[in-house]
Amino acid sequence: MTKERLYLFDTTLRDGQQTPGIDFSLEEKAAVAAMLDRLGIDYVEGGYPGANPADTEFFQRRRTHRAVFTAFGMTKRAGRSVDNDPGIQALLQADSAAICFVAKSWDYHVRVALGATNEENLQGIRESIAAAKAAGREAMLDCEHFFDGFKANRDYALACAKTALEAGARWIVLCDTNGGTLPDEISEIVKEVTSVVPGEKLGIHAHNDTGNAVANSLAAVDAGVRQIQGTLNGVGERCGNASLTTLIPTLMLKPAYHERFEIGVTREALATLTDVSHAFDEILNRTPDRQAPYVGASAFATKAGIHASAIVKEPETYEHVKPEEIGNRRRMLVSDQAGRSNLLAELARFGLEVDRKDPRLDGLLADIKAREAAGYAYEAADASLELLARRRLGHVPAFFEVEGFRVDVERRYNAVGDLVTVSEAVVKVKVNGERRMSVEEGNGPVNALDRALRKDLGDLSSAIEDLELVDFKVRILNGGTEAVTRVLIESRDGEGNRWFTVGVSPNIIDASFEALLDAVVFKLVKTMPEMQAAAE
Amino acid sequence: MTKERLYLFDTTLRDGQQTPGIDFSLEEKAAVAAMLDRLGIDYVEGGYPGANPADTEFFQRRRTHRAVFTAFGMTKRAGRSVDNDPGIQALLQADSAAICFVAKSWDYHVRVALGATNEENLQGIRESIAAAKAAGREAMLDCEHFFDGFKANRDYALACAKTALEAGARWIVLCDTNGGTLPDEISEIVKEVTSVVPGEKLGIHAHNDTGNAVANSLAAVDAGVRQIQGTLNGVGERCGNASLTTLIPTLMLKPAYHERFEIGVTREALATLTDVSHAFDEILNRTPDRQAPYVGASAFATKAGIHASAIVKEPETYEHVKPEEIGNRRRMLVSDQAGRSNLLAELARFGLEVDRKDPRLDGLLADIKAREAAGYAYEAADASLELLARRRLGHVPAFFEVEGFRVDVERRYNAVGDLVTVSEAVVKVKVNGERRMSVEEGNGPVNALDRALRKDLGDLSSAIEDLELVDFKVRILNGGTEAVTRVLIESRDGEGNRWFTVGVSPNIIDASFEALLDAVVFKLVKTMPEMQAAAE
Repeated sequence: MTKERLYLFDTTLRDGQQTPGIDFSLEEKAAVAAMLDRLGIDYVEGGYPGANPADTEFFQRRRTHRAVFTAFGMTKRAGRSVDNDPGIQALLQADSAAICFVAKSWDYHVRVALGATNEENLQGIRESIAAAKAAGREAMLDCEHFFDGFKANRDYALACAKTALEAGARWIVLCDTNGGTLPDEISEIVKEVTSVVPGEKLGIHAHNDTGNAVANSLAAVDAGVRQIQGTLNGVGERCGNASLTTLIPTLMLKPAYHERFEIGVTREALATLTDVSHAFDEILNRTPDRQAPYVGASAFATKAGIHASAIVKEPETYEHVKPEEIGNRRRMLVSDQAGRSNLLAELARFGLEVDRKDPRLDGLLADIKAREAAGYAYEAADASLELLARRRLGHVPAFFEVEGFRVDVERRYNAVGDLVTVSEAVVKVKVNGERRMSVEEGNGPVNALDRALRKDLGDLSSAIEDLELVDFKVRILNGGTEAVTRVLIESRDGEGNRWFTVGVSPNIIDASFEALLDAVVFKLVKTMPEMQAAAE
Repeated sequence: MTKERLYLFDTTLRDGQQTPGIDFSLEEKAAVAAMLDRLGIDYVEGGYPGANPADTEFFQRRRTHRAVFTAFGMTKRAGRSVDNDPGIQALLQADSAAICFVAKSWDYHVRVALGATNEENLQGIRESIAAAKAAGREAMLDCEHFFDGFKANRDYALACAKTALEAGARWIVLCDTNGGTLPDEISEIVKEVTSVVPGEKLGIHAHNDTGNAVANSLAAVDAGVRQIQGTLNGVGERCGNASLTTLIPTLMLKPAYHERFEIGVTREALATLTDVSHAFDEILNRTPDRQAPYVGASAFATKAGIHASAIVKEPETYEHVKPEEIGNRRRMLVSDQAGRSNLLAELARFGLEVDRKDPRLDGLLADIKAREAAGYAYEAADASLELLARRRLGHVPAFFEVEGFRVDVERRYNAVGDLVTVSEAVVKVKVNGERRMSVEEGNGPVNALDRALRKDLGDLSSAIEDLELVDFKVRILNGGTEAVTRVLIESRDGEGNRWFTVGVSPNIIDASFEALLDAVVFKLVKTMPEMQAAAE
């Protein structure tokens, strides 16, 4: 049985740009477009030329090779000709292979928001599509508020779709603009629309306002549409658009879909999806969502003692898809309930092959449990766990020794009478038997400590030049008088590696210093394998 | 037409505890249980007594009043009697109104993971349910991997459900344990199950591994189940469970559901949902998801763009539900009309009656917006907000003045050669024109500062004797180089009053001191009304 082709339309650079807090630079837009092109997306909507200078500049040339580079804009306004509508002209001047027009398909909005007649709106659709076609472009129509419009005035909503079809639109996209429609309604309404517009010319544009953007997209496909609009990691206005990052694996790995459909993404490209998702977060300078379907760091992580041992035995009966298919991996979290098999799996991941009967395992396991009971959260601090294991197994050289440190934070009036706070840290270390003291100021005690610690480690300094502290989380455990402070630190290096370390102490400075120390030592272990080998 | 009752079962404290990075303390579990009880959840699953000491201790007494407090655990193991199964005994000893057993319903797992026979597994279900009933508890069964099990061996999966039903289980919950099932499959399979177990005794437990946890839960309800299991903000193993925070508004506000069903949550409670969601994030020390359906800060936000102006005209035609219904609000990133009336309501809550036209309101409003933009989280720090308002309105006397402080944290070897860390703080204040210096040690810089600050405030000291710092939370905002630290402090006094204060600064010590200062001044304001009056 031959499969039907499903088309993916990405609007990360247009609807995604509407996300509160997201504001792409030209360079970022170019990077995202290239990323989507490599991934195998069919249409990349680059933005709204004419709406703002950045988008206009972005459309001075085509930004994709395989994907159809698409410009977004409104249909012709009522009361003026296509030639006299600056919006339309900006779209026709933009260097895109396709134009996606948006038009109201809810008669109420035509009247209230546009102050136009229903026929004027249809005329706008007809002439805009025709103008794009005449200019040799692929034309499509986003029907705004289609589902609400359909419920309010079925015939008019359908008339908008039909008009676009007759004018030569390749795609008529049904938009759930406010995101309030539920899967059942989507499928009922789409089925009715297919009696007017053939499914192979219909698209769906879903938002996540009820948490159903993905389900609504799938329901629309089941009901006949053949184009799905969405965004990377589900960014988009309000609660976001349908996440292509979630839909792509479902379409490619779930029998219900891959047996009936094929998309432009290859298996090889699918295996890069986790990286693509994280690279996009890097561009947005966001911490990746650990719980994201398929690509999240926790998507294939198991903490439960009750499952862990069995999963190690036979992962496929516990995982709905293979993590490797999307470039993700299985994670066994060492936690309270964790057992020997968990630990062995983790050690293997660290590249530490240990015999199941190795007596050192008991010591390590006891160690981990005692420390987790004391507040260490190793499931959130891989690097500290790996260091703990390597130390127990004798794989960590004593790179340097910390003799002590001091931190002063003082708030006082400075010479010109302003109240200022100065943080200063002194760290005393021994490297290769040589004593070194460093003093640094920082915008806080931890920052000062971090800088003083890394200021001068002798020969080791070069290895940690590119180390950077990116996040710092503090938690007070079992609040009250015997409160213990847990500090989680996220570090990053030049190659974009990220690792997490943890420190626990009644004293926040001690806890922070412990996590900082682990962050540095972990980096040294990774960049100096030869010293590591020497230690074994 | 009378509505059918739908039951909500919350597993935040059990499945949510499996979330990588989440590790509730006893106090946090109690706080979450109380929160869920107030919200109107029907069943609150508190954890797994017997699995770890914390959960066992949590079940030493019932933690909810309205909600059915539920314990989770495995069914009887093969080859031993109920009396000799420590797991079952721990459940029977736990003080819960209901017991939710989990059992394999996939014959493959019975054989491979349990190494038991199908009949032994059924016997475990039968006798475990019976034992719970005999102990006067409400009993229910979570059928693990039910959907995969059903596809592999329909009859056996159904036999598990039927066995529980016949043994007297109130609920048989169909679990999509690995989260891989899609909405269509869910509804097909649930329909078949209803031929064996009546829908009013069926529940659904969905995970978000394909981004369909919410859709799967709704599909199951449409197919007949009457209990939904989920968690606050969708926390849970791997990609999380179905989010009750998303499902509750859909069930109460969407005609397709509220016309057919009713749940235990009142309209008044629904209006607190946004606060509940954020309060839960505070407990987790997580940044709330701005794009979360219904409760996210962006859920009703519109960027100045093609929609904004029209939305101001007629919001209801652009919003799928009213933000106020869930205690959220519209955010127009162009202008914010909500501000003033919100503020007046807050002030009234503090007992500050201010005229709507009072010019000082504009200054205060501007102040609050500027400070919130800088990182102050007033929704989580009432006391600091009240102080800010009282200061602007001239209701706060200058109790004392801080001239400066100094904190030293030093790690060094002590006389007997142990590595110790000593924290010492000096605070210089002026009370009634009189200069006072205090020095104190603490188990950390903040504790030392707190003690030094309160050590000697002259005549004021008596008023703050019973003040106690109970919790301290730190978060780094907009990570990276310009990172700003936000410190939230919870204080308590002898009468059990609790109040929250906030401090923000690039320097964690400055931020902490600001929050400590607010905590002390707030207490003074409350205990010295006469001085306050004098200030007016």
